[in-house]
Amino acid sequence: MTASRVEGRLDALYAIGGGEGANRPALSAHEDAAHALAWGWMREAGLETGTDAIGNLYGRLRGREPGLAEIWCGSHLDSVPRGGRFDGALGVVAALEAVSRLEPGARTVTVVAFRDEEGCRFGDGFLGSRAVSGQLDATGLENADRDGVTVREALAAGGHPFTPGDGWLVPAPAAFVEAHIEQGPALAGQDAALGVVTSIVGILELQAVFAGAAGHAGTTPMANRRDAALCAAAFQVAAAAAARDIADAVVTVGSAIAVEPGAANVIARRTTVRLDARAPDAERLAALERAVWAAADEAAQAHGCEAQVDVTMRIDPVACDPALRDVLGRAAAGAPSLPSGAGHDAQVLARAGVPIAMLFVRSLNGGISHSPAESSSREDVAACVDALEAALRELTDRR
Amino acid sequence: MTASRVEGRLDALYAIGGGEGANRPALSAHEDAAHALAWGWMREAGLETGTDAIGNLYGRLRGREPGLAEIWCGSHLDSVPRGGRFDGALGVVAALEAVSRLEPGARTVTVVAFRDEEGCRFGDGFLGSRAVSGQLDATGLENADRDGVTVREALAAGGHPFTPGDGWLVPAPAAFVEAHIEQGPALAGQDAALGVVTSIVGILELQAVFAGAAGHAGTTPMANRRDAALCAAAFQVAAAAAARDIADAVVTVGSAIAVEPGAANVIARRTTVRLDARAPDAERLAALERAVWAAADEAAQAHGCEAQVDVTMRIDPVACDPALRDVLGRAAAGAPSLPSGAGHDAQVLARAGVPIAMLFVRSLNGGISHSPAESSSREDVAACVDALEAALRELTDRR
Repeated sequence: MTASRVEGRLDALYAIGGGEGANRPALSAHEDAAHALAWGWMREAGLETGTDAIGNLYGRLRGREPGLAEIWCGSHLDSVPRGGRFDGALGVVAALEAVSRLEPGARTVTVVAFRDEEGCRFGDGFLGSRAVSGQLDATGLENADRDGVTVREALAAGGHPFTPGDGWLVPAPAAFVEAHIEQGPALAGQDAALGVVTSIVGILELQAVFAGAAGHAGTTPMANRRDAALCAAAFQVAAAAAARDIADAVVTVGSAIAVEPGAANVIARRTTVRLDARAPDAERLAALERAVWAAADEAAQAHGCEAQVDVTMRIDPVACDPALRDVLGRAAAGAPSLPSGAGHDAQVLARAGVPIAMLFVRSLNGGISHSPAESSSREDVAACVDALEAALRELTDRR
Repeated sequence: MTASRVEGRLDALYAIGGGEGANRPALSAHEDAAHALAWGWMREAGLETGTDAIGNLYGRLRGREPGLAEIWCGSHLDSVPRGGRFDGALGVVAALEAVSRLEPGARTVTVVAFRDEEGCRFGDGFLGSRAVSGQLDATGLENADRDGVTVREALAAGGHPFTPGDGWLVPAPAAFVEAHIEQGPALAGQDAALGVVTSIVGILELQAVFAGAAGHAGTTPMANRRDAALCAAAFQVAAAAAARDIADAVVTVGSAIAVEPGAANVIARRTTVRLDARAPDAERLAALERAVWAAADEAAQAHGCEAQVDVTMRIDPVACDPALRDVLGRAAAGAPSLPSGAGHDAQVLARAGVPIAMLFVRSLNGGISHSPAESSSREDVAACVDALEAALRELTDRR
């Protein structure tokens, strides 16, 4: 019953927007439709529903002691274009299923669906969790999508009266537990249905610009070149090698590499590479950052170029709360621990001082995500619901 | 007088298009403007002007014996973006200056300005010399620039009625002599104003497409990746190393590197690199081609990707005509011999059976070319005009 209901709800969310994959961009009619479905399911489960000024959705199972801060459990309902069936949606649907099995405890237990986690439309992401926790300022509202629509305009069109102010939009919770598909191969590799997250990765987005000298591709001997494109390639290879030397660190160049002046028969005088660098804790992130800078300097020196590296985005890694990890560990007996390589709303709440924990559900298909091929099994999803139920039951009565 | 007129004409061509450097893309209004200037200078010199169906420009000093094939001397007037003052333009302006000093001889002596030598806009290059010599077929007309405009459309817009057919657009010449800035450091290293070219480099343009697997930039461990962008970078580094092992061989990646799907936080499933590979003779070109293919295969294997390498352009190396080299050697007494690392219209005509020779003019600034810093001295340019005058005087009366 639980498994088929969860599956049916994931299917209903996935069908929104049509086309291949999940298509629920932030602050769009499709994200609204997902929130409307979840609102109905919360009502069906007898929860008390509400929203905040940015449009985050809450379904509350009221506790006996209104003076105690709430326990939150949830995730997000927006998706990347052609996204997967489980990313975000699973965390909301599983939380709802788990809470529907609970009797009221001491604390209120609240299912939460955040707005705009992915950031694909407006660039930044984590809009709902940043807004509710007082971390979204006025400049964040001026980001525009590719049609020129700003966050401010999209919020107004959706009827969300958010204005940046001080602090939380609603009272801060005592804890936040987020279930999420792993989006990676680690649990499958350990033959584990569930995993307890130790920390959420820190992310650096870097822009590396290499400046060399233009020249004729035929008449400039290899030894005389200051080839900015070759320098950038050497940098990519060296940065990847450096990441391999740091446990659980990764670097990725996923966007087009700009080469100037940009003719096949002209040696590049300037090449720009965007690099995404991640590591699970502050120490390893700092080591990775140093290694990436060293790779840029060494490539520049070897190729007679100049390197300029700028950090365009920095998200600090956060550790999950040890006591909450213990709760999840008991609720999901035998589940291994692992770091999260992806960013999640939980880390935003952690930055605002909320104790957080995350439960990962095994990914199939090699951990592919942000893709229609993203998948978790019905059994693993059922195990996730069971574990959330046990954890929330324990948390609602903790002081 | 000659020196200042040549200089003034190079300045006038350089000023076309505005901005930094020469900016006269193929089949553009700026290339048209250059041809219009040259047309006026030809008229001023009393030459008989004409064009062919692709828009190449001819200025003829009619000879006494119309049955004899013509002697051609010239180069091209298009430029790379932000190009140099001398590349192509010098060969046309110097030829015009030399011919303006001649009395009619037995053969007609013709100043030629070819269209689209550089190939920056549509990819292939040598459009004018290929077309006039019957080496441009219908498929070459479907190449498009980055706005989607095809060669066919650009020709129609420019009023050039070219359609691919058999053979030459105009009668084939008896010889073609091309003067060109060296675009390299060899003559400066030998303290020589002029050089006589022995052979013209062979050029391969290759497109290497690496196919890997998309994945989440944060959750896919380095060891599990099939990162097409990283594979392409490793290929670039390996191909450059291979070129360094072959004397006078070079490889260059000068155009933007396409990465798909193209998001900073998604591992590339597909990356496309264009590579320019050159070597001075057939044996070394074949060795270089084998080495580049091996570099692609090895990178693909190391990164779990598949490599597809296609040759998109192949220009065989060509030797200059020994008798014509002797004529240039007499006209430029003491000039050393050297190979050309750049491709030139002369080699296209050689492929069609025309005896060719080339005269190089010393480059300053380390041989930098395809750059506003490209330069030759006024004295060296004057020596070039003198040498061309003497050579053409000898050739017009040869049987």
